[in-house]
Amino acid sequence: MELTFTTALDLIGTFVFAISGIRLASAKQMDWFGAYIIGLVTAIGGGTTRDLLLDVTPFWMLDGKYFLTTAVALLVTLLLKEKVFKWGQTLFLFDTIGLGLFTVVGISKSVDAGLPFWVCIVMGTITGSLGGVVRDVLINEVPLLFRRDIYALACVAGGLVYFMCNYLNLPEGATETLAAGSVIAIRLLAVKFHLHLPKLRPIKPNK
Amino acid sequence: MELTFTTALDLIGTFVFAISGIRLASAKQMDWFGAYIIGLVTAIGGGTTRDLLLDVTPFWMLDGKYFLTTAVALLVTLLLKEKVFKWGQTLFLFDTIGLGLFTVVGISKSVDAGLPFWVCIVMGTITGSLGGVVRDVLINEVPLLFRRDIYALACVAGGLVYFMCNYLNLPEGATETLAAGSVIAIRLLAVKFHLHLPKLRPIKPNK
Amino acid sequence: MELTFTTALDLIGTFVFAISGIRLASAKQMDWFGAYIIGLVTAIGGGTTRDLLLDVTPFWMLDGKYFLTTAVALLVTLLLKEKVFKWGQTLFLFDTIGLGLFTVVGISKSVDAGLPFWVCIVMGTITGSLGGVVRDVLINEVPLLFRRDIYALACVAGGLVYFMCNYLNLPEGATETLAAGSVIAIRLLAVKFHLHLPKLRPIKPNK
Repeated sequence: MELTFTTALDLIGTFVFAISGIRLASAKQMDWFGAYIIGLVTAIGGGTTRDLLLDVTPFWMLDGKYFLTTAVALLVTLLLKEKVFKWGQTLFLFDTIGLGLFTVVGISKSVDAGLPFWVCIVMGTITGSLGGVVRDVLINEVPLLFRRDIYALACVAGGLVYFMCNYLNLPEGATETLAAGSVIAIRLLAVKFHLHLPKLRPIKPNK
Repeated sequence: MELTFTTALDLIGTFVFAISGIRLASAKQMDWFGAYIIGLVTAIGGGTTRDLLLDVTPFWMLDGKYFLTTAVALLVTLLLKEKVFKWGQTLFLFDTIGLGLFTVVGISKSVDAGLPFWVCIVMGTITGSLGGVVRDVLINEVPLLFRRDIYALACVAGGLVYFMCNYLNLPEGATETLAAGSVIAIRLLAVKFHLHLPKLRPIKPNK
Repeated sequence: MELTFTTALDLIGTFVFAISGIRLASAKQMDWFGAYIIGLVTAIGGGTTRDLLLDVTPFWMLDGKYFLTTAVALLVTLLLKEKVFKWGQTLFLFDTIGLGLFTVVGISKSVDAGLPFWVCIVMGTITGSLGGVVRDVLINEVPLLFRRDIYALACVAGGLVYFMCNYLNLPEGATETLAAGSVIAIRLLAVKFHLHLPKLRPIKPNK
């Protein structure tokens, strides 16, 4: 395995998403193994769904490093537990970085598969945000995706940036950096300034 | 894209299921984007699962009209919000129509894939009812499928009607209309007359 | 269909998992059809996920006996309802047996598919435990997998036993029996002696 730029993005994204899953599992009082699995599905859930939709072998079956990275994330959480309390903001930052990185990884893979641009953006959004959805379904919460300030929408925006850069013939590294940066910036700004889309007025469902 | 009978069924089904998802999302106070996604998974969740099981490319990756139809459904909901209150019965009717249409679309696709008749019925049932299950899991409710009067069972009955018509060599249009009509009629009658299967007597689970 | 050793394991596993799903459905006051579906997803959910990941046709599409076995399980539950109350321990035993059997079936299939040993163990664990996870998500509970004494971890341990036996060139029947037996024994001992992994200290999530 060569350590390319995308591989690095991928591993960092895996690590930060695993941490985010493990922390939520700890809030639900799960044991180590349960926390490991929740960390794992957070980290690989989005990419696995993408690969199933693209009908390619799920990425983690070809390379053990995702399972190992999650194990490292669990170890780090166990060792630094006390400090994790103080990491609040840092970890939110990490989670947001993961969102940006995974979105770009997902778009990149879909472009390689020759899909139309809007399907690539959907795949990027799935790669970035679906792991967190699976995590939230497993711990029996309404997925944050549906409650939070701009989240999946940041992935869509980052996807548009990706294809604009592509259209302008920017080199791949620049395109990926700008796209991931957009996702991260939009999400950070949305949270800092409490930006969100309007809510639908509640309609009493009668079914 | 030519507008065949099946395509029309498909688009109407998509629209009514998207509306049903968006309404439930509004009851959960989601924002526009969250509501769009819930509407989308309600509309495409069943067919996506079917296509994954059949190992074919998910239908919505080949054609943007399902995403567009869901966007139209969101716009309509936003514009007619006030009136949607009064639509209760109409929307229930729409949801039931969607169930019938999607069941037939699912069976049709599976027959084309050369599957045995009982697998086709299962695929029709999945196509018709699984979008609603995914919707309910995401908004953290026990799926209506498991609580409601005759629902998925109506899909199974419609599937049997489909293959009876097939056996009698009825033309395809008639077969599809009769099968979808049966699903719709059974569901409407079940709700009107409160027909339901007996419940299992609660057994205290000791695990 | 010839009744091989693995087929027998498979059918017994299907039956006991279906019973476990049906019992939980009855506790949620579902009707017969809902209970059938919950029983079915408990029985086939793990293997279906495995087959989607391996990109092979889901096993139940090729053979109606899994749907029939679930129907038999429902009939048995309806007929013996009163007695099921007294079956507590027996059914827990059955559920544990299903876990062991399905883990081995999953590993076996993955070895045949030529996957590396650690992926086979993951697939065995998925086959054994994911049906119960899907069941719990559908009835809107945090999956037992994440709350219970040693559960999925027993599958992992059984997988290691499988490959140790393999390494020692034991015949296939012995390997499968020892692996399934290990899963069952570990789970039984864990429950009897309240063995469990340490919990993660709750960390107040600030997301």
